[in-house]
Amino acid sequence: MNTTISTLGSHCSLQVLKGAKDEGFNTLLICEKKRYKLYKRFSFIDKLLLVDTYHDILSQEFQNQLNELNCILIPHGTLISYLKPDQIESLKVPIFGNKYILRWEADRHLKQKMMINAKLNTPKSIENKFDIDRLCIAKLHGAAGGKGYFLAHDKNSFEQASSKLINEHIISNESELYLQEYVMGVPAFIHYFFSPLSNDVELMGADRRYESDIDGIGRVPSRHQNNVNLEPTYNVIGNIPIVLRESLLTDVYEMGDNFVEASKSLISPGIIGPFCLEGVYTSDGKFVTFEFSARIVAGTNLYVNGSQYSNLFFNEEMSMGKRIATEIKNALGSAKLGKILS
Amino acid sequence: MNTTISTLGSHCSLQVLKGAKDEGFNTLLICEKKRYKLYKRFSFIDKLLLVDTYHDILSQEFQNQLNELNCILIPHGTLISYLKPDQIESLKVPIFGNKYILRWEADRHLKQKMMINAKLNTPKSIENKFDIDRLCIAKLHGAAGGKGYFLAHDKNSFEQASSKLINEHIISNESELYLQEYVMGVPAFIHYFFSPLSNDVELMGADRRYESDIDGIGRVPSRHQNNVNLEPTYNVIGNIPIVLRESLLTDVYEMGDNFVEASKSLISPGIIGPFCLEGVYTSDGKFVTFEFSARIVAGTNLYVNGSQYSNLFFNEEMSMGKRIATEIKNALGSAKLGKILS
Amino acid sequence: MNTTISTLGSHCSLQVLKGAKDEGFNTLLICEKKRYKLYKRFSFIDKLLLVDTYHDILSQEFQNQLNELNCILIPHGTLISYLKPDQIESLKVPIFGNKYILRWEADRHLKQKMMINAKLNTPKSIENKFDIDRLCIAKLHGAAGGKGYFLAHDKNSFEQASSKLINEHIISNESELYLQEYVMGVPAFIHYFFSPLSNDVELMGADRRYESDIDGIGRVPSRHQNNVNLEPTYNVIGNIPIVLRESLLTDVYEMGDNFVEASKSLISPGIIGPFCLEGVYTSDGKFVTFEFSARIVAGTNLYVNGSQYSNLFFNEEMSMGKRIATEIKNALGSAKLGKILS
Repeated sequence: MNTTISTLGSHCSLQVLKGAKDEGFNTLLICEKKRYKLYKRFSFIDKLLLVDTYHDILSQEFQNQLNELNCILIPHGTLISYLKPDQIESLKVPIFGNKYILRWEADRHLKQKMMINAKLNTPKSIENKFDIDRLCIAKLHGAAGGKGYFLAHDKNSFEQASSKLINEHIISNESELYLQEYVMGVPAFIHYFFSPLSNDVELMGADRRYESDIDGIGRVPSRHQNNVNLEPTYNVIGNIPIVLRESLLTDVYEMGDNFVEASKSLISPGIIGPFCLEGVYTSDGKFVTFEFSARIVAGTNLYVNGSQYSNLFFNEEMSMGKRIATEIKNALGSAKLGKILS
Repeated sequence: MNTTISTLGSHCSLQVLKGAKDEGFNTLLICEKKRYKLYKRFSFIDKLLLVDTYHDILSQEFQNQLNELNCILIPHGTLISYLKPDQIESLKVPIFGNKYILRWEADRHLKQKMMINAKLNTPKSIENKFDIDRLCIAKLHGAAGGKGYFLAHDKNSFEQASSKLINEHIISNESELYLQEYVMGVPAFIHYFFSPLSNDVELMGADRRYESDIDGIGRVPSRHQNNVNLEPTYNVIGNIPIVLRESLLTDVYEMGDNFVEASKSLISPGIIGPFCLEGVYTSDGKFVTFEFSARIVAGTNLYVNGSQYSNLFFNEEMSMGKRIATEIKNALGSAKLGKILS
Repeated sequence: MNTTISTLGSHCSLQVLKGAKDEGFNTLLICEKKRYKLYKRFSFIDKLLLVDTYHDILSQEFQNQLNELNCILIPHGTLISYLKPDQIESLKVPIFGNKYILRWEADRHLKQKMMINAKLNTPKSIENKFDIDRLCIAKLHGAAGGKGYFLAHDKNSFEQASSKLINEHIISNESELYLQEYVMGVPAFIHYFFSPLSNDVELMGADRRYESDIDGIGRVPSRHQNNVNLEPTYNVIGNIPIVLRESLLTDVYEMGDNFVEASKSLISPGIIGPFCLEGVYTSDGKFVTFEFSARIVAGTNLYVNGSQYSNLFFNEEMSMGKRIATEIKNALGSAKLGKILS
């Protein structure tokens, strides 16, 4: 095959290129120089294209280089955190999936619109600090990875924490924050793949994130917590595998189906390939969705050899990276590449 | 092979039928109509038999249908939660395992008798609320899935929580509750398989449950917990894989052996196939058993491709579902089906 | 092959001998009599050599027996907990790895020296109880497995807990304890393999420990914790799999490389084979190392079928046990056994 599968070096690139190699593709990693020492170790990466920063892929010259190598670019979280939606949409390289949907993941209002259209349960908004009558979480508009998030259980505790953010020049006033009820329950991230070729939604796995330091504070007894000032942070360090109770799967697939339908109606032709619903299961088994990702998520790195779910569908070990590669292979074989690229 | 392996659609049915299919059996899923959309997705299910509710399997006509298809029914948690022990015992379909032992799982007194016979450590009972001198857990007789459970650290906190249950008409008076010491430690669920053909106990895996919202409250710092009223619930959402310290395995096998012996003496011919011991490892590495399951548990869904333990025994990926299928296949081959059915 | 791979029965011995058998070696387990019932179950163990206690391997006669069987001994945590460094070094049996480095793991001062040489971040020391101005952890010199560890948030809480240890005759005075800041974050254990044959550091997996009862206290709401006296303990019960955020892997490999370099300069020829860095990821993604193990750790038991990382390198399921066996096989094949034994 002379098609090359390429991606940015970070996030889930090892899995993506390993899967591509296993499916017979050439593989190319766009790699920041500081990361070269890591990625040169992996023999399934055929070519490393070094850049100073991932912003460099915006140059037409760089994109020409990719196109000469017959590259398809697999987008992931790193692409989204480096480039703005306009910039991603402007790329003149074939991108796997619907690149126009990535904007809906990045913009809070579009995101909310998509989730409502997909009939997902979402957390209740709290209009302002005077309405705080339960545990709430304050979030910073556009903040990434939980930075600037804090919990509050009343007006006072809200003001204390927001003053702190103001003093630290992280925000300039309270209005930059928005408030949601804190949904009690257990976090879960559900990995899907939608194939435009088969028109099927596939459940590919589930995980929970492993976040610092919030997943460590439970290891501090409350009498010590009460005596030191712990402000939780939610920085993703890794992921832990989970399986879901089988009786929850009916809803899991329904949420996936609804998400696909909503995406088709809002941003044609809709989602293509991997996506993820991210939320909390409450004590009555209801899933409340906080976020979605309209592309592969890093939690799929757990399942380089296939997950408990993908192994029900496929007679081989199927990672999400490999699933992407098989979809491209199938599209190439049936001259339907146009259905899966943008 | 013209034997059909069948089960109810829920709990661990995907794993069970996938394993059966991989071993060459016909597969049949008894499926509530509302679950059809889920189960029709899986190609390893040869036949879906739709019912309005799982109570429908009690009709003789339905059972005749299963018998015409040469079905063996694999029991799991959903069968137990829909049918009473009498009803399960009355089924005129061959059931894998000893169906008479399922009663011992459902009845608290029989359960306790089995655990004592098996020389398992069990939590200390607290006679009444005046004796609460440590952290205790109050349980509702016959409650499923932790519903109505609560913690109490003294008479006062017990009365507060039980009044709440009375007000909510969940109980009518305190005497419906029983009290146990709350065993500090980490929960673990140990999956076993006993083969009457080889007379061996096999350790098949271990997991910890992922329960809402109890496994989420540790993510709320104590100063917020202190200011909002969190009442923990224990609804199973999924499972997380664990391996056990190798030096604990001597006891793990001894517990399994003892459980098999106890079951043989109490409810002949004893346990057949999968069972599970469910409890907590204390800080001195002692396992305190709360419950057992006398059939396959959903935590085995983690190990669709085999577990760290099953892979030591078998030269292929052996899920619990596949293990059941191989046992049936071996029994068919050696004309010993009578040893594994009831 | 007439080489026999042997190890002590405990810790990770099942994985080690399964891997050895899969690679074609004879396998021998040195087994305390009380553990015989466990280990006789596994058919991949060719020979069980029974001893009353693992101290028996110190006798020259016993070592002669191993040498007659052409044994290579794989060291692990159990060897270290039974024998003193002098005793391990005195063994006249070929040991896989550099046996002289095991002393550096056992001695707190040598350990600290190695970690500083390897440029690892380590927790800040607190000189004495008057300096406690944040959450601290007090550790007992030479204590194993977290026994005698406690948390303190000020001088008072330190004195309370240390008085308790004195009253219980665990220590005779406070000076036996040393104090470190308690690093907030999430624990992680990173498994490496260094091959002197290829001169490569391989990332083999990561886990977090599952410790009793510290990993259970988060399941007790703070208002109950506040009313009962919970003193956390850190007894390892098992392990939970994790993958790390891919952007952390650059540092992960750099830490591994630095550790190998430091070990070469401090205790020639340096580390050989498996090692582990053990610490906490803070909320800014920095890894703070508490400990290292200069040999295989039990967390690798999670990956009997290979990990998410080992499967990127190897085209087969590669456990750490199997990796050791392949290294020995490669060394035998190229007459370089001297490079990997001591």
